[in-house]
Amino acid sequence: MELLYDVTNSDREIFREILSSSGYFYDFEIETALSLLDETLENGEKESGYYWIKVIDDGHVLGFANYGPNPCSVHSWDLYWIAVHENYRNRHAGSLLLKCVEEQVAKLGGRILWIETSGRPLYEPTRHFYARNNYELEGSLRDYYGPDDPKLVYRRIL
Amino acid sequence: MELLYDVTNSDREIFREILSSSGYFYDFEIETALSLLDETLENGEKESGYYWIKVIDDGHVLGFANYGPNPCSVHSWDLYWIAVHENYRNRHAGSLLLKCVEEQVAKLGGRILWIETSGRPLYEPTRHFYARNNYELEGSLRDYYGPDDPKLVYRRIL
Repeated sequence: MELLYDVTNSDREIFREILSSSGYFYDFEIETALSLLDETLENGEKESGYYWIKVIDDGHVLGFANYGPNPCSVHSWDLYWIAVHENYRNRHAGSLLLKCVEEQVAKLGGRILWIETSGRPLYEPTRHFYARNNYELEGSLRDYYGPDDPKLVYRRIL
Repeated sequence: MELLYDVTNSDREIFREILSSSGYFYDFEIETALSLLDETLENGEKESGYYWIKVIDDGHVLGFANYGPNPCSVHSWDLYWIAVHENYRNRHAGSLLLKCVEEQVAKLGGRILWIETSGRPLYEPTRHFYARNNYELEGSLRDYYGPDDPKLVYRRIL
């Protein structure tokens, strides 16, 4: 597996396909992710504040991560999106992406990486994934995403 | 006191002056607030996702609030900024603005209004203000804004 640190117009459909394949995201969430990509394609990562990493194997994009500095903090960065195509699960592409995000954030001066996810049962494997990767649950905000759908906030000090 | 629901180019310097007067905000935070205003001036409130209310008295803008729908939630809205000029304190302009934001959010279909603020001692009056206005502390995220500067998350069900 190989990592790539830039994005192009052709990633738009690839990312959409990856996000849909998982069954985790509502259509309006997928549009939100793609609008961040559009901002990066238009203004570059530094000005948009959105950074991307793709994991590639044999010419296929298996998954991607999207992260950036928190504009209100002196040292916090946020992981906005991380997703691996359903067809390429169980190859640890997600852990590789996450590790790589942490390295990049540390290199760019970030001290804490924050991740937000849903408390719905569907996201149980996601929560396991973050716990396994040494993220601690720092807060839980009731009904944040919707009725009985809390936002869980995880962090890791880098 | 009178409320106005739109913003113009001339509000840029007025909002900067209001934000500076309080002594609460770092320069980079003020720039962040003004960049949200720029987005609204360019694309309108609906497309930018940023809504504004100004409180006016005798031709002067005493303060403003800025809020919008949370793009990841079906019913949550966020209060991004609320500020009253130092010269016009103790006239309840802040409570009036907040009440008015709540009404607008409810009218636009929002169910919960979320507010984030700092846990630093400087923000003690701010935290009192939210408690007095029936916001409940829903979470505290250590070192979020900086070392020993947690993010406190308040909410009110509308």
